[in-house]
Amino acid sequence: MSERHMKLGAFLMAGGHHIAAWRHPDAHADAGSDIAHFIELARIAEAAKFDMIFIEDAAAIRERNADLASQAARSTAFEPLSLLAAIAVNTTHLGIVATASTTYNEPYGLARAFATLDSLSGGRAGWNLVTSASELEAKNFAASGLRPHSERYERAEEFADAALKLWDGVEDGAYLPADGAAFADRTRLHPLHHHGKHFAVDGILDSQRSPQGRPIMVQAGASDVGKELAARTADVVFAASQTIGEAQAYYADVKARLAKYGRAKTDLKVMPGISPIVGATDEEAKAKHRALQELIPDPVGVALLASYLSIQDLSSYPLDGPLPEMPPTNLIQSRQQLIVDLGKREGLSIRELARHFAGARGHWQVVGTPVQIADAMEERFAGGAADGFNVMAPLFPSGLQDFTTLVVPELRRRGLFRDDYEGRTLRQNLGVGAPASR
Amino acid sequence: MSERHMKLGAFLMAGGHHIAAWRHPDAHADAGSDIAHFIELARIAEAAKFDMIFIEDAAAIRERNADLASQAARSTAFEPLSLLAAIAVNTTHLGIVATASTTYNEPYGLARAFATLDSLSGGRAGWNLVTSASELEAKNFAASGLRPHSERYERAEEFADAALKLWDGVEDGAYLPADGAAFADRTRLHPLHHHGKHFAVDGILDSQRSPQGRPIMVQAGASDVGKELAARTADVVFAASQTIGEAQAYYADVKARLAKYGRAKTDLKVMPGISPIVGATDEEAKAKHRALQELIPDPVGVALLASYLSIQDLSSYPLDGPLPEMPPTNLIQSRQQLIVDLGKREGLSIRELARHFAGARGHWQVVGTPVQIADAMEERFAGGAADGFNVMAPLFPSGLQDFTTLVVPELRRRGLFRDDYEGRTLRQNLGVGAPASR
Repeated sequence: MSERHMKLGAFLMAGGHHIAAWRHPDAHADAGSDIAHFIELARIAEAAKFDMIFIEDAAAIRERNADLASQAARSTAFEPLSLLAAIAVNTTHLGIVATASTTYNEPYGLARAFATLDSLSGGRAGWNLVTSASELEAKNFAASGLRPHSERYERAEEFADAALKLWDGVEDGAYLPADGAAFADRTRLHPLHHHGKHFAVDGILDSQRSPQGRPIMVQAGASDVGKELAARTADVVFAASQTIGEAQAYYADVKARLAKYGRAKTDLKVMPGISPIVGATDEEAKAKHRALQELIPDPVGVALLASYLSIQDLSSYPLDGPLPEMPPTNLIQSRQQLIVDLGKREGLSIRELARHFAGARGHWQVVGTPVQIADAMEERFAGGAADGFNVMAPLFPSGLQDFTTLVVPELRRRGLFRDDYEGRTLRQNLGVGAPASR
Repeated sequence: MSERHMKLGAFLMAGGHHIAAWRHPDAHADAGSDIAHFIELARIAEAAKFDMIFIEDAAAIRERNADLASQAARSTAFEPLSLLAAIAVNTTHLGIVATASTTYNEPYGLARAFATLDSLSGGRAGWNLVTSASELEAKNFAASGLRPHSERYERAEEFADAALKLWDGVEDGAYLPADGAAFADRTRLHPLHHHGKHFAVDGILDSQRSPQGRPIMVQAGASDVGKELAARTADVVFAASQTIGEAQAYYADVKARLAKYGRAKTDLKVMPGISPIVGATDEEAKAKHRALQELIPDPVGVALLASYLSIQDLSSYPLDGPLPEMPPTNLIQSRQQLIVDLGKREGLSIRELARHFAGARGHWQVVGTPVQIADAMEERFAGGAADGFNVMAPLFPSGLQDFTTLVVPELRRRGLFRDDYEGRTLRQNLGVGAPASR
């Protein structure tokens, strides 16, 4: 393959990415509890030759206020590793990426669980490393509440190092060597002896090395420390950028950090989110968008905007006025900045910002025909803003079907996307090199 | 159903329960890394209408000494929850029971993962609660090493209470109520506010209540504190007893503890392990057993015996002499006592005890024809020693196939085992009542 192809992920979410998806007439009533629904979505993505599916996570309910319908589509969720194990045995080539937190897990337990997922799937697993910024999640695990951003990232750095070393501590074929005299070839096992600030791990993983070496590492960190961790350890970054300028700046920033870790620019794939609303005609696409936007109640949009801004409440401010000045926060700093910048740049009111962000949940949204959407994707792909995209369909399954049946063929016509998988592992399909064992 | 039926579990393990299974000519070379192998075993158990499959676990390699072949069949293992999620979507009625530790997990995370498994499977999940007595496992999680038995059980008690309350905190249909106005019916959600010695959990599970209410609780504790925890919280206990007398004493002991928790004797099913070696004739069964026993090297048997006794090494004692006096230990106290008692009662040497325990790994073994095995099972089932059995086939898949094709029909002829499943949930099939939500 000489030409450069886009990487495509399908970011799955029970009802759909649009905040009001669950209220749509086509919505699946209890999508978050229906494994058959997720298997269907995965098969749609695999039939279209997507690189991977992506599952977000927080070990908590998603909405403090049960009287708001805002997070309905996500009010119930499957634990991602178990969900993806069930999907792994119903797919053959599709990468499966699960989100898991370094704040509420231990390196050995999580590295082992991902090794299982990688083995079950024949080398198709990926780990989206997060540090968990949710207050609701913190309360489920500790009386001490949410740890500061810097402390969470310090733990994440140590966690990632330990996990990578555990995976790379088992060479190919180390267990059950051919002569049958011992349970392992000791010369091919390299125990980790980690005694750090947050963890102590003295041992060896009880899994064969995966066909892809180890799981793909995915991150979405947009803070400085997050981007640095991604540059050091990640194979894929998933980013939220509204404008092509923001996306180009993020792309250049992350890629420029790779050299100091001895990594090439192609070793890390930047895959921003895109929320496509596809219509056969421009008017059909706009009508689909309107139908969804009209389902958003103002209180829901405003509450979601407040949560993105990491503030308790916006309801005391006039809906048609500007955002108030923001206090400093220890939460996901980059998203807050993105919203504040957009509000100032375009002079948007709280109501307008709420609608804008509620719909696509802060991600880049394109409403249009297959040609218009392919144009927008190609512009960013060719323009130094993306190596591919994490596709966030507004409604499942129809929004994903719209994309695979209408937009993917257009991308193929332009030579921008594969006709078939290059290999059987996620690493082969993404085109990121196999890591060496220790 | 008026007659009382046996409950049957299939205790799956990669190569087989016999310690030398992996060296047998019929062994699967890399069973521990082959998901198709496990799905095949589950389907065999489901076709025979077993209540459940059972997966043990320790988050570590199983053998300190890589030069010994002893634990070969278990040198690689899948993380049980992911393994069972993959099996859940390939079965329809079979219960799926995963072992997980209260020592190296957090209540919210584990309760949530089991809620996912219960949901994925349509109400067929069970949790075998363990406190993790392995030193190798302890080293993977903490610099402080293995915690004393009493401290582990104190944490387990608090963990089990929190998990049960999390599951019971969500009433049927609490999420996505029919009117679509809010993401949940707040009156049907009962947040846990737990602030204990080991854990703080302030929240609600993000899962619909399962069709069986909550996962089945399984335990294998044989210490006094273990039996008390089982009497208070378990639906099934899995026990190791050599003689019918030991099994009757254990059965009576555990059942007698139920009343003080307001529970009926039928609320807890006692399912001891049985390691059946089945032949069409007595001689064929004995030949199968000999073929396996001859594959056990003495050092392997003796090392395993030492590990069961929780002592570092037995190799300095004469192989044909008796066991030395044992030091007190904080490990699995009951298993040690069982071995010491058997050695004294039958005057067995270290070599003899090693062979005896290595083969069936400390469980009750019956070598014989289908009629002989059914006789032995019926004697214990009718004689106040068991409500059913956890079947530990010596070799997979052939040992499980021998049992399902030869012994199960004999049990059915006697009216001791079901012809078909009573229901779709594990709780319905076991005949233990559905718990009330809080």
